[in-house]
Amino acid sequence: MPKDFLSVADWSADELLQMLARAQELRRLHRAGERPQTLQGRTLAMYFEKPSLRTHVTFEAGMAQLGGHAILLRPDQVGIGTRESPLDVARNLSRWVDGVMARTFSHDLVVQLAEHATIPIINGLTDLLHPCQAMADLQTIANVMEPREATLCYVGDGNNVANSLILLAAVLGMRLRVATPESHRPPAWVMEKAEPLAGESGAEIFWSEDPGEAVAGSDFVYTDTWTSMGQEDEAEARRKIFAPYQVNRDLLASAPQAKVMHCLPAHREEEITSELLDGERSLVYEQAENRLHAQKAILEWVMLPKGAQ
Amino acid sequence: MPKDFLSVADWSADELLQMLARAQELRRLHRAGERPQTLQGRTLAMYFEKPSLRTHVTFEAGMAQLGGHAILLRPDQVGIGTRESPLDVARNLSRWVDGVMARTFSHDLVVQLAEHATIPIINGLTDLLHPCQAMADLQTIANVMEPREATLCYVGDGNNVANSLILLAAVLGMRLRVATPESHRPPAWVMEKAEPLAGESGAEIFWSEDPGEAVAGSDFVYTDTWTSMGQEDEAEARRKIFAPYQVNRDLLASAPQAKVMHCLPAHREEEITSELLDGERSLVYEQAENRLHAQKAILEWVMLPKGAQ
Amino acid sequence: MPKDFLSVADWSADELLQMLARAQELRRLHRAGERPQTLQGRTLAMYFEKPSLRTHVTFEAGMAQLGGHAILLRPDQVGIGTRESPLDVARNLSRWVDGVMARTFSHDLVVQLAEHATIPIINGLTDLLHPCQAMADLQTIANVMEPREATLCYVGDGNNVANSLILLAAVLGMRLRVATPESHRPPAWVMEKAEPLAGESGAEIFWSEDPGEAVAGSDFVYTDTWTSMGQEDEAEARRKIFAPYQVNRDLLASAPQAKVMHCLPAHREEEITSELLDGERSLVYEQAENRLHAQKAILEWVMLPKGAQ
Repeated sequence: MPKDFLSVADWSADELLQMLARAQELRRLHRAGERPQTLQGRTLAMYFEKPSLRTHVTFEAGMAQLGGHAILLRPDQVGIGTRESPLDVARNLSRWVDGVMARTFSHDLVVQLAEHATIPIINGLTDLLHPCQAMADLQTIANVMEPREATLCYVGDGNNVANSLILLAAVLGMRLRVATPESHRPPAWVMEKAEPLAGESGAEIFWSEDPGEAVAGSDFVYTDTWTSMGQEDEAEARRKIFAPYQVNRDLLASAPQAKVMHCLPAHREEEITSELLDGERSLVYEQAENRLHAQKAILEWVMLPKGAQ
Repeated sequence: MPKDFLSVADWSADELLQMLARAQELRRLHRAGERPQTLQGRTLAMYFEKPSLRTHVTFEAGMAQLGGHAILLRPDQVGIGTRESPLDVARNLSRWVDGVMARTFSHDLVVQLAEHATIPIINGLTDLLHPCQAMADLQTIANVMEPREATLCYVGDGNNVANSLILLAAVLGMRLRVATPESHRPPAWVMEKAEPLAGESGAEIFWSEDPGEAVAGSDFVYTDTWTSMGQEDEAEARRKIFAPYQVNRDLLASAPQAKVMHCLPAHREEEITSELLDGERSLVYEQAENRLHAQKAILEWVMLPKGAQ
Repeated sequence: MPKDFLSVADWSADELLQMLARAQELRRLHRAGERPQTLQGRTLAMYFEKPSLRTHVTFEAGMAQLGGHAILLRPDQVGIGTRESPLDVARNLSRWVDGVMARTFSHDLVVQLAEHATIPIINGLTDLLHPCQAMADLQTIANVMEPREATLCYVGDGNNVANSLILLAAVLGMRLRVATPESHRPPAWVMEKAEPLAGESGAEIFWSEDPGEAVAGSDFVYTDTWTSMGQEDEAEARRKIFAPYQVNRDLLASAPQAKVMHCLPAHREEEITSELLDGERSLVYEQAENRLHAQKAILEWVMLPKGAQ
């Protein structure tokens, strides 16, 4: 079993479902005001190359609520790759703390940290993947219906969030329809990684350039910002390319029962209308809440000896 | 009862005195080395648009000493109003933590957060008000004499600290004399808010342009920096306008028993002389200490179910 | 007994050995998964003028693992000496927390904080001294052999790390050989401070310009970066001056049993080769680990009443 949480594709369907079950239990306990102290005395280092509200607060609050503590590290203090090599940072941190959560531009940096560290590394978002978000999304879907009976539709940019949803669907055997412009399809390596997994699990993963085709009859319609962190230069061009992919009332006409999902932060009236984001069909604040619970389950999973769970 | 702590004027005299009593109890316990764990498992998000020593350390230490945890958020990471709307930030934080302490330039931002959040928002200083400071000042005065028998004099700039002292006096029925230049009187809205409260409580609030008149016979003489954060451009002009309002040995000649108060940071030899700040009549480090205790009482008040207190 | 931990030379050999014994006990407990909660409810303020990985993470994780909490303060928020005087910062912090760890450019600032604070100040590195590193190094050496029977050799720049090793050797009665260029000898004040201590303890401290002479027969060969924080302008010139002092396979030929030490961060292939840093003779990650344990012992030492230890 891998020591790290770098991608949902590193785990079996059974393992992901065990994590989900624990996330649901932790959600129930938290909402009842209970604070199980399972990570007492444990420490997590958090390393952020990019700004963060959700990832920062949910990991730091999650550790504190479980009795542990999270330490915030930023590039101007630590400088992985500039002031100190990834190897040295990984070896040092392995001596002091029980795990590292890293949000980096380059996925390769997270892989290097995992290689050199003897403690678990958790991927808190890279240019390629966002597995913690995918687990929170799974929990959000599961609170509405059985995920493997759902039809999930992702509309917009074929980015790290889309990649992790594809891999999640592939491992678990979900139905996923992805609609992006031809120029912003999910990368070939994701589809190649997903295909054999889908073959095993029975997942149905389908791509189309036409958002209308993808959305029709879906249970969940998911979108994300058109301009991720680091792409601000391209914002204007991207607004033109993605305009037909806006999630709005018209697009959802063919999916009358669909719930709306977004991993936030949202650019209102760009990729999604405020009407939908704030409306009754929106699950976005549920998704945000589930970051807390899903990540607590991941933290316990990688930090505690397996027998203890 | 409001869920938030935005202004002392939102509370009754009775409620403020209950908070004061708890602050005194917490001070006694802390000094005896006792650390009641009343906020175990609770988390507070702290959002700072302005730099801070006192507010940061007292809230973070306060949460830790009560068994809870405080999370530091800064604008370059979170960007309320730039990266994400106040509405979305408030809704997200409401899912993860038990309260938010915000220090912002604009009072309106704190009001918006309170409106959209389902968790309590604590005003840690805005351009209009500084209610946590007022509660620490009340505790400091109460350690010397019964606040409603005291004559408090505020000398200098009619700023957020002065505003909160005016509202505090109005709610509790204290005697307060304010001396500022005509051009820097406390704003009309504060006096309009204070008047009916003072009518009910019997507070006597009095303004004068003449610091000598205001100080004569006072029990406490309070001043604050002439140049608050964000006003650095005006520093030179302000030094001229406020020169007659310096709190020094001469000004205090007519109030021989008066104690000296300042909410810090002080510009020594500007609004107050070092001789007074460091002398026997100074209560400034008591005020600073009481930030810790008064805010713990506020945190318990807004975070714990009322029956539990 | 001093309340502060500013220099190893402020303590007797007996006291330093008591701290070492506790550090060893804490290391044993931590590695066994035990987390003694000796600092429950205690808070430490950490003030960093310079970036830090090791000092930051080890103090924050150390406090958390002992049940306490560390608060991170940075100059852009607090501004000791700019926004507020050292005197006022020291007096304020003394009211709220149980100790301060400061990493500053100027040693004098740490001395001023200690003078004005009523709580203990811990020197987390200044331009003159690095006593926490020296204690971690002592622990690392003690895990290999009895420190007072060891021959330790320091090669490179006569900086703050060298200064603290000299004082450590002088207090404890160790054998220390220092090899630096004539132009970068440890300063006269250190040797003057060390001499009488060495007279009492029987320490043998020896300086040479010749690294070969110093290294021959040593048990430990220690080096540090040639360009400390704040000296980046001189980096090129320093690389020339120090080139003969590189710790590499050739230099160690005359000390076949020597272990290699470095306090990190390392500039690989400058002051030390990667071959040695990553090789079997390297103790550098042990040194890094022992920062955690040694500092926990220091924190307990200065924060807890002596009878409690």
